[in-house]
Amino acid sequence: DILERPEGLELGGDLREVTIMMSDIRGFTTLSERLAPAQVVTMLNRYLGKMTDIILAHQGTIDEFIGDAILAVFGAPQKRDDDADRAVKCALAMQAAMEEINAENVADGLPAVATGIALNTGKVIAGNIGSERRSKYGFVGHPMNVTSRIEDLSAGGEILLSDSTFRKLSHRYPVCDTRELKVKGIDELVTVHRIEAATDG
Amino acid sequence: DILERPEGLELGGDLREVTIMMSDIRGFTTLSERLAPAQVVTMLNRYLGKMTDIILAHQGTIDEFIGDAILAVFGAPQKRDDDADRAVKCALAMQAAMEEINAENVADGLPAVATGIALNTGKVIAGNIGSERRSKYGFVGHPMNVTSRIEDLSAGGEILLSDSTFRKLSHRYPVCDTRELKVKGIDELVTVHRIEAATDG
Repeated sequence: DILERPEGLELGGDLREVTIMMSDIRGFTTLSERLAPAQVVTMLNRYLGKMTDIILAHQGTIDEFIGDAILAVFGAPQKRDDDADRAVKCALAMQAAMEEINAENVADGLPAVATGIALNTGKVIAGNIGSERRSKYGFVGHPMNVTSRIEDLSAGGEILLSDSTFRKLSHRYPVCDTRELKVKGIDELVTVHRIEAATDG
Repeated sequence: DILERPEGLELGGDLREVTIMMSDIRGFTTLSERLAPAQVVTMLNRYLGKMTDIILAHQGTIDEFIGDAILAVFGAPQKRDDDADRAVKCALAMQAAMEEINAENVADGLPAVATGIALNTGKVIAGNIGSERRSKYGFVGHPMNVTSRIEDLSAGGEILLSDSTFRKLSHRYPVCDTRELKVKGIDELVTVHRIEAATDG
């Protein structure tokens, strides 16, 4: 996978500002227990396939699939001025694609699903992480953990942005709701905004 | 990576009993903020390199590195009678290797670190998960989530086993401590045992 071995990468690791995206199908594990294994994999791969296409079309870097969760970043290995903007557009496109995914699920006798998406911007250490036998381009830092905590809060159909992402945007998306979040290892509360999936500018 | 594309794999996904291992360096993110990015990557790759060697030597399948966290399984793609036993031996060997890792860290002016390890046994759906553009051999199911919750509880130097793993072992490791754990999405409490890293049989 070329994304895992980008050219021109600092082997030693460097500090970069990135916009991190984490998403998760709500209740997927519980849902998966009512289905045959092959149905679960069909449903998961349909979803991950469409999400992969959308993330790559928005020049995001997919770091991991962890079960039904997706971890992606915008801004590494290549930084662009509109990293946060592209991340939000990507999240809106992902939510918009759920209708088509669910229509295909229902046509196959599978349940409709809903995904929650969290975005957060911050400085992380990016580098080739692992061993000689197995390494990948990966990320370390509190902003990763913060994103994961925001993602825990996101309901199906929602897009939650940290204030750090929100302040980077050139387009002002209407905010439906603002919450404050205590995150382990971080003293200050994290401010999180919810934007409407239907308000794509 | 051959581990991600094992031969003879059911493409559709199947239900398998596996012993899941998750480990994490305690406080690594906070520690990493006091170091230069290159030092963080050096320290992380030294640790992940040794852990990879130990896990592969015990015929574990590494699913992911997520920052400093490792997710591995014993029992897929190939099931063996001693999957749980090998997982515990592997965890003991991982904790034993920390002394050497920390001696090398200290020699390089880097801090000593401690890892927590969780083991849990259960039935998961295993399959090639992802898209045509990017897929990997991955796992879905409540036992994955339960392992993650047990891992959250494990302190540096500790090995915590769920009762489901403990009951599979042919060697009776002395238990130092037993706790009960409430896990989201699971009705029953999960019983967790701590075994001593120094009591390798």
